Amino acid sequence: MSGNRAVAYEGPGVVKVIETDYPDFELHDGPGVNPANIGRKIPHGAILRTVATNICGSDQHMVRGRTTAPEGLVLGHEITGEVVETGPDVEFIKVGDIVSVPFNIACGRCRNCKEGKTGICLNVNPDRPGSAYGYVDMGGWVGGQAEYVLVPYADWNLLKFPDRDQALEKILDLAMLSDIFPTGFHGAVTAGVGVGSTVYIAGAGPVGLAAAAGAQLLGAAVVVVGDLNEDRLAQARSFGCETVNVGAGSVPDQLEQLLGVPEVDSAVDAVGFEARSEGHGAHAKEAPATVLNSLMSVTAAGGAIGIPGLYVTGDPGAVDDAAKVGSLSISLGTGWAKSLSFTTGQCPVMRYNRQLMMAILHDRVHIADAVNAKAITLDEAPQGYAEFDAGAATKYVLNPNGYIAA
Amino acid sequence: MSGNRAVAYEGPGVVKVIETDYPDFELHDGPGVNPANIGRKIPHGAILRTVATNICGSDQHMVRGRTTAPEGLVLGHEITGEVVETGPDVEFIKVGDIVSVPFNIACGRCRNCKEGKTGICLNVNPDRPGSAYGYVDMGGWVGGQAEYVLVPYADWNLLKFPDRDQALEKILDLAMLSDIFPTGFHGAVTAGVGVGSTVYIAGAGPVGLAAAAGAQLLGAAVVVVGDLNEDRLAQARSFGCETVNVGAGSVPDQLEQLLGVPEVDSAVDAVGFEARSEGHGAHAKEAPATVLNSLMSVTAAGGAIGIPGLYVTGDPGAVDDAAKVGSLSISLGTGWAKSLSFTTGQCPVMRYNRQLMMAILHDRVHIADAVNAKAITLDEAPQGYAEFDAGAATKYVLNPNGYIAA
Amino acid sequence: MSGNRAVAYEGPGVVKVIETDYPDFELHDGPGVNPANIGRKIPHGAILRTVATNICGSDQHMVRGRTTAPEGLVLGHEITGEVVETGPDVEFIKVGDIVSVPFNIACGRCRNCKEGKTGICLNVNPDRPGSAYGYVDMGGWVGGQAEYVLVPYADWNLLKFPDRDQALEKILDLAMLSDIFPTGFHGAVTAGVGVGSTVYIAGAGPVGLAAAAGAQLLGAAVVVVGDLNEDRLAQARSFGCETVNVGAGSVPDQLEQLLGVPEVDSAVDAVGFEARSEGHGAHAKEAPATVLNSLMSVTAAGGAIGIPGLYVTGDPGAVDDAAKVGSLSISLGTGWAKSLSFTTGQCPVMRYNRQLMMAILHDRVHIADAVNAKAITLDEAPQGYAEFDAGAATKYVLNPNGYIAA
Amino acid sequence: MSGNRAVAYEGPGVVKVIETDYPDFELHDGPGVNPANIGRKIPHGAILRTVATNICGSDQHMVRGRTTAPEGLVLGHEITGEVVETGPDVEFIKVGDIVSVPFNIACGRCRNCKEGKTGICLNVNPDRPGSAYGYVDMGGWVGGQAEYVLVPYADWNLLKFPDRDQALEKILDLAMLSDIFPTGFHGAVTAGVGVGSTVYIAGAGPVGLAAAAGAQLLGAAVVVVGDLNEDRLAQARSFGCETVNVGAGSVPDQLEQLLGVPEVDSAVDAVGFEARSEGHGAHAKEAPATVLNSLMSVTAAGGAIGIPGLYVTGDPGAVDDAAKVGSLSISLGTGWAKSLSFTTGQCPVMRYNRQLMMAILHDRVHIADAVNAKAITLDEAPQGYAEFDAGAATKYVLNPNGYIAA
Repeated sequence: MSGNRAVAYEGPGVVKVIETDYPDFELHDGPGVNPANIGRKIPHGAILRTVATNICGSDQHMVRGRTTAPEGLVLGHEITGEVVETGPDVEFIKVGDIVSVPFNIACGRCRNCKEGKTGICLNVNPDRPGSAYGYVDMGGWVGGQAEYVLVPYADWNLLKFPDRDQALEKILDLAMLSDIFPTGFHGAVTAGVGVGSTVYIAGAGPVGLAAAAGAQLLGAAVVVVGDLNEDRLAQARSFGCETVNVGAGSVPDQLEQLLGVPEVDSAVDAVGFEARSEGHGAHAKEAPATVLNSLMSVTAAGGAIGIPGLYVTGDPGAVDDAAKVGSLSISLGTGWAKSLSFTTGQCPVMRYNRQLMMAILHDRVHIADAVNAKAITLDEAPQGYAEFDAGAATKYVLNPNGYIAA
Repeated sequence: MSGNRAVAYEGPGVVKVIETDYPDFELHDGPGVNPANIGRKIPHGAILRTVATNICGSDQHMVRGRTTAPEGLVLGHEITGEVVETGPDVEFIKVGDIVSVPFNIACGRCRNCKEGKTGICLNVNPDRPGSAYGYVDMGGWVGGQAEYVLVPYADWNLLKFPDRDQALEKILDLAMLSDIFPTGFHGAVTAGVGVGSTVYIAGAGPVGLAAAAGAQLLGAAVVVVGDLNEDRLAQARSFGCETVNVGAGSVPDQLEQLLGVPEVDSAVDAVGFEARSEGHGAHAKEAPATVLNSLMSVTAAGGAIGIPGLYVTGDPGAVDDAAKVGSLSISLGTGWAKSLSFTTGQCPVMRYNRQLMMAILHDRVHIADAVNAKAITLDEAPQGYAEFDAGAATKYVLNPNGYIAA
Repeated sequence: MSGNRAVAYEGPGVVKVIETDYPDFELHDGPGVNPANIGRKIPHGAILRTVATNICGSDQHMVRGRTTAPEGLVLGHEITGEVVETGPDVEFIKVGDIVSVPFNIACGRCRNCKEGKTGICLNVNPDRPGSAYGYVDMGGWVGGQAEYVLVPYADWNLLKFPDRDQALEKILDLAMLSDIFPTGFHGAVTAGVGVGSTVYIAGAGPVGLAAAAGAQLLGAAVVVVGDLNEDRLAQARSFGCETVNVGAGSVPDQLEQLLGVPEVDSAVDAVGFEARSEGHGAHAKEAPATVLNSLMSVTAAGGAIGIPGLYVTGDPGAVDDAAKVGSLSISLGTGWAKSLSFTTGQCPVMRYNRQLMMAILHDRVHIADAVNAKAITLDEAPQGYAEFDAGAATKYVLNPNGYIAA
Repeated sequence: MSGNRAVAYEGPGVVKVIETDYPDFELHDGPGVNPANIGRKIPHGAILRTVATNICGSDQHMVRGRTTAPEGLVLGHEITGEVVETGPDVEFIKVGDIVSVPFNIACGRCRNCKEGKTGICLNVNPDRPGSAYGYVDMGGWVGGQAEYVLVPYADWNLLKFPDRDQALEKILDLAMLSDIFPTGFHGAVTAGVGVGSTVYIAGAGPVGLAAAAGAQLLGAAVVVVGDLNEDRLAQARSFGCETVNVGAGSVPDQLEQLLGVPEVDSAVDAVGFEARSEGHGAHAKEAPATVLNSLMSVTAAGGAIGIPGLYVTGDPGAVDDAAKVGSLSISLGTGWAKSLSFTTGQCPVMRYNRQLMMAILHDRVHIADAVNAKAITLDEAPQGYAEFDAGAATKYVLNPNGYIAA
């Protein structure tokens, strides 16, 4: 077992499948590896044969060349796998376990991990709290869009599925536990969604659709999803959401038609900094604060806004100088007058993945259908990236080792 | 009892004591009264003889001419009084009760009041959720910097002090329950302050000092207060806070000297939209987003920022066009990378005033000392406004009826 | 409109429809009225023509003669109605509104009401906190199993349905908002049920079934209902619950067959003090602590137990002297070793009824089907009581004024 | 370094200092070691030279012969130490660190640990969730009333003090972080204590006094401590608590004299199953449910009761057959009528110890003074046990290696 194949970023717009090393229990030098992490020993790690490994919207920021990601960076932070080797410090995870890997890497030993804040672990990224596999400026942990991947702190990070056969049967659903299902769910939770809530979700990409499914699971009375892309809106309607095309009129007006009032209890920003201005169709130009400002206008006084959509500290390709350094023109006065609250940041996946797994295993939610998950081979990854970037209403799941039945 | 005297706004920079009407159980036309509220019957109201009625920093926005407040508007939303008459629908509040009046007027009958969100009551301000006495665009309820004032929905709004003599003995402390003590406390609560927290409070005016006292009461390990005004910083140190002069070096550096790390668990913005840029002393020019951006930089990953400081939707006197419509340039990317959360808006005073009253009555906190409360006569109000505007480290409490002993 | 007809308790086992007075805005003397409440003026009240008024399991304690309820007591605390008159202090509720009445009477003006604890209002029952319509020792408020009923503090207590036609169309569902749906939901909430939970509910009567529907709405992965009555268990299975017949083997063993483990995350006691011992079929003798002790054994360490089932302070008909004074033999050590928590008491209906109404109106839950609601006439009430007492898997809804279509 | 000395239980009433083995990174057979734990490898462990190791009230249950503890069991679960060796899997804890050891042993890798429920870790005690050092039926982890002790899962379990000199200066305070301070604090937290609360704490032993100090830190307005032992009550008064001697009249009456009302918002049971009946002085006989029943009577409707006091599943020495199997006669009806809630179980120390450490280090609390901590030598341990059992108002801290200055 001396080789490995992986999906790598090879320059703006270019993704390739490359030959690379089979992992061992050390973090070696390579594209994007933080110098302070080079040579780090991982006796607490497990090596997984990937069962499913998804393409994420946040990968697109790198692929589009909007970041400082180096060429050769192996991508992939949405990983499900079978354990094939464990390091000497691993006590409870066993070879043969089928497991979900939270995209946020966490040590399970620092103050933040002990408080359940695994999205901002203090010990895995030398530059700042928080890390992820296969992502620029996140410490250099090798991505999982590959045949094999190393997961550190395996006893802490891995969620074992209770039954192998049952897991493989529902694998397209369970594959969403590594990132987008918890991420969307976190958006709904931090937006204060509960039984009987009315909810507006900006963005019908996979995270927005996952937020919608999460809001339903939390008991929301009505979930409205907004986007400019009609295919994605159709996808939202397929599992019981209401939709608004934000290019077809004002959002408050459309909400009023649906709900009788022009506002909702809770709102989720599932778009982030690459937002485009409303009202101009698919060719709208970037307007990074437009989604958040719009959400403040449609959230009822006393409401909350969950912001799983990514906002960055630097964006060299941004439309204006302020946005290039991550400063956005926010209508804070509107939010203040309405006593709104806001929650930002990476979802701490471990806070939610076990409970969402239970909901999947007991058929309470069909997240793969909700996001239109589709398995493709590792070699089809470049095409998957291209189609996703073009707006396909599809969540692409790489199937590098054939676990996912046709 | 056919007369009344009150403090009124009479134009930019001008505050006067005027003769006005003794209240009855109806909201009559007058400066700033919303047309839809004119003639509103108040059988559920109580008329109070004011015991204490404070000058608030938020009054200054009107007095400086930064709002559309009309001339003749009677000021005052921080009211403590003795009940002298009750309307026919009042059942539990009795003549002779000494009571605290939450500055937010609430009906006790709408969805938001039932959920404890009295800062955004749906039934008292025809224009939007939320109201207050003596304030522009808040429905037109007459202010309480007067000898007598009408309080609607008296059974719901009023907090009765259990013992008259005990109340008058601690009246300068109890007078802070109508606004700034709960408001500062709410800032600390929404910043996530708890036992052992490290806290940074931007602004050493009365709300900032109240937030500091509130943070101590919540068990904070260290409370650091920042301002440009040395007198106010001295006031903060008088009850055990650490301080930083934001004009004397970077805040993170100063925090590191105090705490060993350049960041805190929790932060409170007790300044709001009239913030001035750091580092330039008292003559610094306005920089409305500077405080909030600074707080994002000093709050540790995973922390929370409470924002009791007022941000407005329109500010014709602002330094730039964006700020004139309430848009501020916020480093949202910084906040997102650190998974911060933010809570804005009016404090719902009723959520906290009973518990803070208990802390005062049992000598667990000395809030009048903390904010340097000073009683003055009604006729001294104009001078009080002027001194406060000049930066006096003093909380002015009007004493229109002589209840407060010299 | 000078008359009224109502269902009254007339002695152990005897329920009759009687002629009685049409209500006015005063609480007059009558069977069970607390002397301190006689003559109480109710200008804040509304008179309702009842649309639906249900028979509740807790009424049975009185009807069976297990309480000190006086003969002539008008029964009924699960009320839905149309407003036909309002007192002079009512401002927002209007004649013609279709409304749900929380069974707990609350003033909306005391400390507990302000904190949302409407089940223990301080101002409506002279004997102790908390009250209800038509119930022994609850202050003497006249019951609502009648053509007309008076509701005090109408602006506070009543939940208005947004649309009359829509309300009448879903009236059997909405009729459950006055008591059992919130009560069951409260059991699930206080048992810590959330997305992905496994839940065991003891008792498949209406409250148990409502707790099961509530747990599903909260996102539970699996809801298991236990009872001795096969008809009621069949009812539970009709909406997706798993069931165990507690007379057919040990509960842990049956749970293990269903879940793979002999325990659940959360448990609800929907039985209360008239519990009968497991394992002996329908003729089992009373064993008042058996349900609670059983729940401690099946709740996983760290779990919570919600106890909406009624436990009383005195029960003259109890099986032993300790139970006669409300003392039960509880395996507290078992609970302590497992770090369990327990929540008892009346559900504060107002905390939940609006959100559950939203879930009903938007077709997220079909509570009338879940509890097998069946409308009968006022004159059929005695028969309804008898059938319910005999174990019918039916929730009886009285239809005194013909609002409910056949 | 081939030897070790430790305090061992040698039969009812008998405690001795014995020679024993210096620990290594394996759990060897010995008195009370669970067969399934024998030979367990501990590469994740650290060996500590004890700095402080306290005598706990819960040790007394064993010493009095009220348990099945075997002779030779090394006692001690309240440990503070200096790290002298670390196993190969320890990454962040370093030799020379001064650390606090939570009494609950936890793996940091199971579902419960990931949820912060370290008191019921699933992987350390083969018999049931939850474990502790030196305690009967807790898995057999060797106690820490010794010169040296092994701590498993060191990166997870240990709380490092930030500065060695500062730590040794406040060592008597910091020594309380391993158990009683968090345990008492947990009692106050789960009793719902917050700013302005009135609190009654049953029991003025170390846990009760720690609960009182914790309640003060949480902002309680008044803390009342009840006991039969006047020395312990004097200790409570020494830091600002009110007290009631439960042998000197009814508790409600005494509370009414102190508070004006005969009840409190929150109550803590810091006594547990060895409670003695009120009203009979020091010779009162055991009445295991008396404290809990008394707390239900004095807690206001809607309140909560925290139960850090230990209740057991079996107590062969109990006063009656029911109590011998852990069944107590509880006035559940009283609790239900008042809508009370109850929280039982071991305190999950890790949830609180960091924040309480911060409060100690910044002089916000003086817990050693509150509990009257007194350092004694290891050889004085038997005398310490005897004096504590006789009711001394003292918390005994063993000082086996001379770290604690005279």
